[in-house]
Amino acid sequence: MAVNGDAATITLGTYLFKRIRQLGVGTVLGVPGDFQLELLDYLYKVPNLRFVGNANELNAAYAADGYARVRGLPGVFVTTHGVGELSALNGVVGAKTEQVKVIHIVGQTPRFMQKNRLMIHHSLGFDPDHQIYNEMSRHARLTQAELHLFENDIPGAAREIDRVIRECMVRSGPVYIFIPLNMVHEELPASLLDTPIDLSLPVDIKAQTAAVEAIKTALQEAKKPAIFADALTHRHNAVPEARALAKRLQIPAFAANMGKGILDESDDFWVGIYHGQVNWPGVTDALESSDLILVLGSLPCDTNTGGFQRKFGTDKTIEINPNYVVVKGKQFPKTYIKPLLAELTKSLEGVEIAKVPIPQLPQRKIPRDHEASHLTQTWIWKEIASTFRPGDVVLGETGTASFGLVGERWPQDMTYIFQGYYGSIGYANPAALGADLALQDIADETEAPRRRTYLVIGDGSLNLTINEIGTMCTYGAKPVIVVVNNAGYTIERVIHGARQPYNDINPTAYDHLLPVFKHPDPENCFRRVVQKSEFAAAFDPSRIENNKHLQLIEVVLDKLDVPWQLLTHLKRRGEKQIKYMQEEGFKEQY
Amino acid sequence: MAVNGDAATITLGTYLFKRIRQLGVGTVLGVPGDFQLELLDYLYKVPNLRFVGNANELNAAYAADGYARVRGLPGVFVTTHGVGELSALNGVVGAKTEQVKVIHIVGQTPRFMQKNRLMIHHSLGFDPDHQIYNEMSRHARLTQAELHLFENDIPGAAREIDRVIRECMVRSGPVYIFIPLNMVHEELPASLLDTPIDLSLPVDIKAQTAAVEAIKTALQEAKKPAIFADALTHRHNAVPEARALAKRLQIPAFAANMGKGILDESDDFWVGIYHGQVNWPGVTDALESSDLILVLGSLPCDTNTGGFQRKFGTDKTIEINPNYVVVKGKQFPKTYIKPLLAELTKSLEGVEIAKVPIPQLPQRKIPRDHEASHLTQTWIWKEIASTFRPGDVVLGETGTASFGLVGERWPQDMTYIFQGYYGSIGYANPAALGADLALQDIADETEAPRRRTYLVIGDGSLNLTINEIGTMCTYGAKPVIVVVNNAGYTIERVIHGARQPYNDINPTAYDHLLPVFKHPDPENCFRRVVQKSEFAAAFDPSRIENNKHLQLIEVVLDKLDVPWQLLTHLKRRGEKQIKYMQEEGFKEQY
Repeated sequence: MAVNGDAATITLGTYLFKRIRQLGVGTVLGVPGDFQLELLDYLYKVPNLRFVGNANELNAAYAADGYARVRGLPGVFVTTHGVGELSALNGVVGAKTEQVKVIHIVGQTPRFMQKNRLMIHHSLGFDPDHQIYNEMSRHARLTQAELHLFENDIPGAAREIDRVIRECMVRSGPVYIFIPLNMVHEELPASLLDTPIDLSLPVDIKAQTAAVEAIKTALQEAKKPAIFADALTHRHNAVPEARALAKRLQIPAFAANMGKGILDESDDFWVGIYHGQVNWPGVTDALESSDLILVLGSLPCDTNTGGFQRKFGTDKTIEINPNYVVVKGKQFPKTYIKPLLAELTKSLEGVEIAKVPIPQLPQRKIPRDHEASHLTQTWIWKEIASTFRPGDVVLGETGTASFGLVGERWPQDMTYIFQGYYGSIGYANPAALGADLALQDIADETEAPRRRTYLVIGDGSLNLTINEIGTMCTYGAKPVIVVVNNAGYTIERVIHGARQPYNDINPTAYDHLLPVFKHPDPENCFRRVVQKSEFAAAFDPSRIENNKHLQLIEVVLDKLDVPWQLLTHLKRRGEKQIKYMQEEGFKEQY
Repeated sequence: MAVNGDAATITLGTYLFKRIRQLGVGTVLGVPGDFQLELLDYLYKVPNLRFVGNANELNAAYAADGYARVRGLPGVFVTTHGVGELSALNGVVGAKTEQVKVIHIVGQTPRFMQKNRLMIHHSLGFDPDHQIYNEMSRHARLTQAELHLFENDIPGAAREIDRVIRECMVRSGPVYIFIPLNMVHEELPASLLDTPIDLSLPVDIKAQTAAVEAIKTALQEAKKPAIFADALTHRHNAVPEARALAKRLQIPAFAANMGKGILDESDDFWVGIYHGQVNWPGVTDALESSDLILVLGSLPCDTNTGGFQRKFGTDKTIEINPNYVVVKGKQFPKTYIKPLLAELTKSLEGVEIAKVPIPQLPQRKIPRDHEASHLTQTWIWKEIASTFRPGDVVLGETGTASFGLVGERWPQDMTYIFQGYYGSIGYANPAALGADLALQDIADETEAPRRRTYLVIGDGSLNLTINEIGTMCTYGAKPVIVVVNNAGYTIERVIHGARQPYNDINPTAYDHLLPVFKHPDPENCFRRVVQKSEFAAAFDPSRIENNKHLQLIEVVLDKLDVPWQLLTHLKRRGEKQIKYMQEEGFKEQY
């Protein structure tokens, strides 16, 4: 063991942040607290790693999630004992259910306080167990490093950090690192950093080869195969491989609504988003009439299947899941989606695949409200989509935005962030911060042009986490934010209580929002759009492309106007729901 | 069993809200969600009960806590499955550790979804257990009603609701009521509402009599007794009894800083706040030299004892705890503070108690910075306290505010809300909403004049929950809000990292804040104070007494200026801390 203070030793705090930097992470989020200030000091000493302070801890968790989704690297955030870690919990559970890589570092009380069960602030009750919060978040994570168990074995603590970082990356989900305040200063050999953390997937090569062979055979036999991409493809970092496979196969390509952006929709063989039975005309038939469906990274929750209406027969389905494959009912365990897709594409070299005519979808009907001069749900989504550019990261918040956004065809090389399964409203605004910080980091580290973050969020949802716009302004994050202002929780109104006051929200004057957070140019960077005729000026490329600052655009819609996809989705609930929606004035638009 | 739909039956949803109304509660807080919209419909049908929608669920929990602290009744709030209930968790844990009555109603998925483990939105993973969130919050509460266990026994579900409401009231802390969506419509006999919930304390009358006797004897024997009030007196609704006892005894009266406002500081026998060794000159000696200390409702956490420096000997201490008494080491279990104090006062009729001279504290020194023209910590707290009026509810946020506020003498009949043990920053702003809604309810239900809510909060803390000001504006809550703007987390700076960027926050332009939330008169209701000379105009009674609307006053302080109490508190940590504070420029002011 090196002498204390020797260059050959580093502190455990330094070790932790160096390991995080080694992954490629450039930003650590969080909220400071007195049980981790000294830990954060070590962060500043790691080159090319920065700390971004969030408005609160739940926002930090959401932002870490957004960061991770853009980079395929962990979103890392730091909170303090009890008050901080529990405030963030809901965001971490979201990352778990959506399989997003998040590292939640919790600064705990020093060991002597823990051992003496001191009633230190942030503790629970008399004679408090300081590990009780750790216990409360057990189901929120894949695994955890409980460094208090290693107070007499600091190299062991370092190995434990390595272990949970590996789990985070390999299994794709949140992990916790609990570190008592006093332990951040403990020293260990710097040489432990020389061996990189093993991030290799535990692939069973034999199983993988067999799976690839079985898929290849099935593809060769198929007369009308199709490919269908879903969310977990993205979470397990297999988007490039999925795109490459689709381009190789040239068969009709589809995606789940949570899988939007995984395949390039600019490709000729792109057909559309399949959402159970809730699709543009022709999409359902086109996919369901296939004789083989290659399903990538399936996440079959209600909101991703049109209410459990995704109907593929086992006998004509190949499921490529994150860590196992099923070919027409036969399982191949320990096969991982990213390497498997790469191998599959390679194995198809020279192999003949059926030339499937790409289904031509019928012309869309003209909506009933197409002559309205004000903004309508039938009009706005196509217009917004027309302003997207290749490389954009688009966030759609749960609500009418998430239903409206997915129906349009997008440019190539898009990333879509939508917390469709967990569906925690308020998520998307802090996630947009995290996404844009990730794009900053990427731009700083590569020659590639700075990409754009584009957030579409309802007024109801934004209200929950609106304070994170302050963090954006402080750290130069500059998403284009479109606020769909329809005077409350419209997605709840169409489900129940259309005119009940509980679906109203506290009204917000968005024109005053940017000045509150000291935005550098609020006058020029806010627009409000009520009429269709005002749209083009507000969304002009000179304003929203290569924009210097955050852009805020309020689009005003009627509170009972909803995307047809949402209406159709809910109609499947039956007569009672249909009658309710009719009586309350939610109108069929097509 | 009555016929379905008969007036003799009511729904379980109605039953729940009628029970809550029977307690005297007038406001239910929360955030709507699709698993409880139909439950909320029943709330609107209960006379004199209203729903107030918060900006987010954590704020709802904080607001419920604030409501409860003003009324001594449960603060009630409603969230939805998973996303809502977990977002609120940190606020509920705060209520548990601070022993605040909170009822958290969670709208769960319908039973058929639970039984089929459907991957419905807000669920966790594949094959999800819908009760997993319930499991995660187990340590956050005293008890819970899990109504899914009573799906075939609706009257049993009603009894379960009664049971947890009783626990909430009797033990004073948070409880959960989980109600699956479909069950809100189940019917039960309306007559079950006729029997009030038994809220009586399970007092052991014999033990209580013996305890009262022992205390009386000790008081008669004492030559220099004193009374010391702490936070749990308030939580267990014993403030009137404590005040009556103090007025009867006329012995020197003190309070812990978390117990401020329990005793009337306008009484002649009031001495001061005792905070371990961190007190105005004379207070420590005055209390510690007593030969008998009557300690009411002790909460001996670090932040309430000057860092565990509260030094009362067992042999001269009478502890009157929420549900047991200790007289000089002898325990009397099953004695409850509220009835015990009432009995004690009654038993003292005609009894002679030593006439103790009330200690005269020395004149305060003149602070070194007393000639500064700008606002200083040594100047501002006395000035702010001078604007308090009898009956005010004052909230002090964790931070410099909570240290500065408590040192001054206040008028009579005050309520002080300070989450001193849990110390979750961001708490006080939503809690002020809850407090002011409680004052609205009280004013609506009594002849008494409308009291005032007065919030003092730092810029760092307000940042976390600033969106709740929107709820205040919507529902006509009108606290006087003083924002101490010292450019970040000053309380963290004095602990560690005085100039580290992690202690900076995203700057806020408070002059733009009220317009964002559509405050009805933002121009007249905002003031910024930098110089001492500007203070009087901003705090003029015409503006902040009987104010029609929410008043926002920004007071600007230097970021390295801290209350002397905080400096003294931290000096007790030893040489290293003292040296740090000196080097970083935190100056001794006296």
